[in-house]
Amino acid sequence: MCDINFDQIKTASQRIAGIVHRTPVLHNHYFNERLNCHAHFKCENFQKTGSFKYRGASNAILSLESHLAAKGVITHSSGNHGQALALAARHKQIRSTIVMPTTASASKRQATADYGANIVPCGPTLASRESTTAKSLAETGATMVHPYNDPAVIAGQGSAAMELVEEVGELDMILAPVGGGGLLSGIAIAISAICADVKVVGVEPAGADDAFQSMKAGTKVAIEQPQTVADGLLPSLGNLPYRCIERHVDQIVTVTDDAIVDAMRTIWQRMKIVIEPSAAVPVAALITNKIEVANKRVGIILTGGNIDLDKLPWVQA
Amino acid sequence: MCDINFDQIKTASQRIAGIVHRTPVLHNHYFNERLNCHAHFKCENFQKTGSFKYRGASNAILSLESHLAAKGVITHSSGNHGQALALAARHKQIRSTIVMPTTASASKRQATADYGANIVPCGPTLASRESTTAKSLAETGATMVHPYNDPAVIAGQGSAAMELVEEVGELDMILAPVGGGGLLSGIAIAISAICADVKVVGVEPAGADDAFQSMKAGTKVAIEQPQTVADGLLPSLGNLPYRCIERHVDQIVTVTDDAIVDAMRTIWQRMKIVIEPSAAVPVAALITNKIEVANKRVGIILTGGNIDLDKLPWVQA
Repeated sequence: MCDINFDQIKTASQRIAGIVHRTPVLHNHYFNERLNCHAHFKCENFQKTGSFKYRGASNAILSLESHLAAKGVITHSSGNHGQALALAARHKQIRSTIVMPTTASASKRQATADYGANIVPCGPTLASRESTTAKSLAETGATMVHPYNDPAVIAGQGSAAMELVEEVGELDMILAPVGGGGLLSGIAIAISAICADVKVVGVEPAGADDAFQSMKAGTKVAIEQPQTVADGLLPSLGNLPYRCIERHVDQIVTVTDDAIVDAMRTIWQRMKIVIEPSAAVPVAALITNKIEVANKRVGIILTGGNIDLDKLPWVQA
Repeated sequence: MCDINFDQIKTASQRIAGIVHRTPVLHNHYFNERLNCHAHFKCENFQKTGSFKYRGASNAILSLESHLAAKGVITHSSGNHGQALALAARHKQIRSTIVMPTTASASKRQATADYGANIVPCGPTLASRESTTAKSLAETGATMVHPYNDPAVIAGQGSAAMELVEEVGELDMILAPVGGGGLLSGIAIAISAICADVKVVGVEPAGADDAFQSMKAGTKVAIEQPQTVADGLLPSLGNLPYRCIERHVDQIVTVTDDAIVDAMRTIWQRMKIVIEPSAAVPVAALITNKIEVANKRVGIILTGGNIDLDKLPWVQA
C-alpha cells in the first residue's frame, strides 16, 4: 500500500511554486525523427542546484512545523540531495547539516559548503555514515530529511510531472530513472491522477537493477554491490518508494552503462545541454528500443546536470 | 557608410519567422551575482544546425528570386555557415554546394552532408578555395551566399536581437563576438533602432583582433595569421560588416584564449548548456571585467554549440 496521494503532490506543488524553477520543456527534431515519437524533455538539469532534488528538499523543509524547522535539518549525501537540502535550508534561513563521506570529491564538498551547509565528515561505510548521522541528530535536535524514503520528498518530486503536463498536455507515457525511487514514485502518482491510460516506465542501470528485480520477485530485493556510471542511481530502492512503484508503475526496464554513456553524449551533441549520466538513463532505453514508443507522446524527466567536466565518461583517462 | 537599415532586418525577421527557432533566453543567478548585473542569454546554440548562422542563411535563400533559387546556392565553409546553408536549402527544396577544405574534420563534413549538401573538396589554401568555388559557380549557375559579406545574411542575423528585446524588454548593453562581423553588424543595426542609449560591444579573441585593430586605426586592418581557440572567429572582418560596425558599434574589446576557455567551462558548469568557444567570447569579457556592467541590463548572444566532444579545450590530449 502506497501512503501518498495526488492531493499531497498538488499541495507540494503549490507550496514550492516560486521557490523552485519552473524548468523548461525542450523538444528535439533529431530525437523525434529517430524514435518516431513526440518526445517532451523536462529539463531538471536547469533546476536550482542542478537537479530535481531541490523540489523534494524544498517541500520537506517548508512542511516542517516552525519549532522543528528552528532546529535545522540533516541528511547524509555526497550528491545532489545534499546540495538541494543545503540550498533549501538557506532559503528558509535554517541550519543544515550534511554528513558526507571523506571520499566525496572536493568539488562536491565545496558545492555543498557554498550553499551554506555545515558539512560533517564520515567514513566511506554505511555504518560510519549512520553512526555519524545519529550523533549529529542527537547533538542538534535537527530533523532528518531522507533523500527518498520520505513522503514530503516524494510529493515534492511529483511536481515535475504536474508542470510537464500543464505545459505540453496529456501524455501517453512518462519515463524516469530509478535509484532510491523517490522521483519515480512522485511522478507516477501525479501522472496517473492526471492522464488517463498513461504508461509509467522506470529505467534502471543493469548494474544497479534492484527495482527491476524487486518488481519481478514481487518483494524488495537488495543488491550487494551495485555498480554503474550513473552514480546518482546507486542507492537502494526505499521501502516507501517500493510500495508506490509497485502500485503505480507499469514497467521497469534496464540499460547498460555503454548505452547510458552513448545516450548522454547524444543529448549533449544534439540538444546542446549538459546532463549527468543518471539523467541519460531513460534516453538510453529509448535509443536502444527497450520500449515501444511509435507515434506516442512521451515525457522524459532529465533529472540533473551535475558532472565533473574533467572526468567525462567518453574521454580516456 | 553602412548599406543596411532596420527595415531590412524587420523584413528578414518576418520572412524567417516559423522557419528558424525562436530560441529561449536563459537567466542565471550565479552570473547575475558575480557580475552584479541582469544578464539575458539569447541561446542560439539551441538554433537549428546549432548556431545563429541558420538565420542569415535562411533569409538569404528566401530572398532569392525563384529563377535564381532554382539553380541552387553555394558557399565555402568548413563550419557553421556551411551547415546552416545546407539545411536552409533543403528546407527551400533547392540544391546547395559547400566547398570545404580536405582538412575539415570528418564529423563536420558528415554533419553538412547529413543536411543534404553536395560537398566539393578543395585544398586548405585561400587560392584553392576560391578557384574551386569559382569553378562550381560557373558549372552550376548557383548563387554564392557569403557567410557575412552579404546584406541578406546580415539582416537575418539581426533578427536574434529583435527577438531578445521582444522577450526581455529594453537593454542597456548588448554583447556579441566578432569574426567576419555579420552577426555584430545585424544586431547593432537592430538594437540601435529599438533601444535608446544602448551600448553595443563586440568582443574578439586577442589572437584574431582585426576588428579591434581596424576600429583603432580607422581603416580595415588585416591580420596575417590569426590564431585562437574560438575557431569560428578566425575569418577576417568583411568590408560590409566593417562599415556597419564602424557606424553602429560603440566598442570592441579583446579577450585571451585562457579567458575564453574558462568562460566556456563556467557556462557549461553553471548553466548546464553546451556552447562552443566562439560563443564564450563575450562571457569572457564579462568575467574578466573588460566591460563595466554594474546594475545594467545586458544582452549576450550565445552564438552556437557545435563542438567536438572528444576534444574539449580543458582536457589534456
